[in-house]
Amino acid sequence: MDQRISLITLGVADLGRAMGFYSGLGWEGSSPDGDVAFYQAGGMVLALWSREKLAADSVVAGDAGGWGGITLAYNTRSPEEVDAVIAEAAAGGGTVLRPGAETFWGGYSGAFADPEGHAWEVAHNPHWTIADDGSVTL
Amino acid sequence: MDQRISLITLGVADLGRAMGFYSGLGWEGSSPDGDVAFYQAGGMVLALWSREKLAADSVVAGDAGGWGGITLAYNTRSPEEVDAVIAEAAAGGGTVLRPGAETFWGGYSGAFADPEGHAWEVAHNPHWTIADDGSVTL
Repeated sequence: MDQRISLITLGVADLGRAMGFYSGLGWEGSSPDGDVAFYQAGGMVLALWSREKLAADSVVAGDAGGWGGITLAYNTRSPEEVDAVIAEAAAGGGTVLRPGAETFWGGYSGAFADPEGHAWEVAHNPHWTIADDGSVTL
Repeated sequence: MDQRISLITLGVADLGRAMGFYSGLGWEGSSPDGDVAFYQAGGMVLALWSREKLAADSVVAGDAGGWGGITLAYNTRSPEEVDAVIAEAAAGGGTVLRPGAETFWGGYSGAFADPEGHAWEVAHNPHWTIADDGSVTL
């Protein structure tokens, strides 16, 4: 197994609402069939699909709803950009989980949940470099 | 917000066990402090961190445990490779959620859960091209 992730699928209850939220953040994607939506995200793909169908496809018994131990993160090139993204997410129907603030690891971060409850940290990590193409290298 | 994901953090109950599992799949990473582990994954980073700390950091109230509506996927270059990865995951302590089989969308896929219960689909999608560097383009 190569060391990479090809696709992350976020289960959603309302595809139109979820697509509207990510569209509001400036993401361009499409749902050719109105069932699943795909967004190019750097060298991988973010998908939005019915949480119920995703649970069945992932052979998950008894989805209790809510968070499941996975948080996504978006790294910015400055602390100011953290605040801007959090504000943009809030304006577009996301929930601010915590506003931007200095972190114990020497960076600056905040977090929001999308309308489906999926958590995103938005972070400026001065120890990590973001390349022109958006990729992050340890 | 640029259209990219920088980091995915998987919450774990047992960091050593989780690191052993991904190491068994051939992933190389490190945990400088024994608290969080980082793996370069293409142009992004996969992290393993205490699920309890991640829940607190993500301001999630009352983590019910279990799956939370997010499934990762690893795309292969052939159907045979799907079976190989699923077998490797099972041998390393993962749980086979479903063995490789033809899918309704014209591909071939199976799925496993890592020892912490995080679901991975392993898929060969003949409609998607995987570049030499492992990146996937829609």
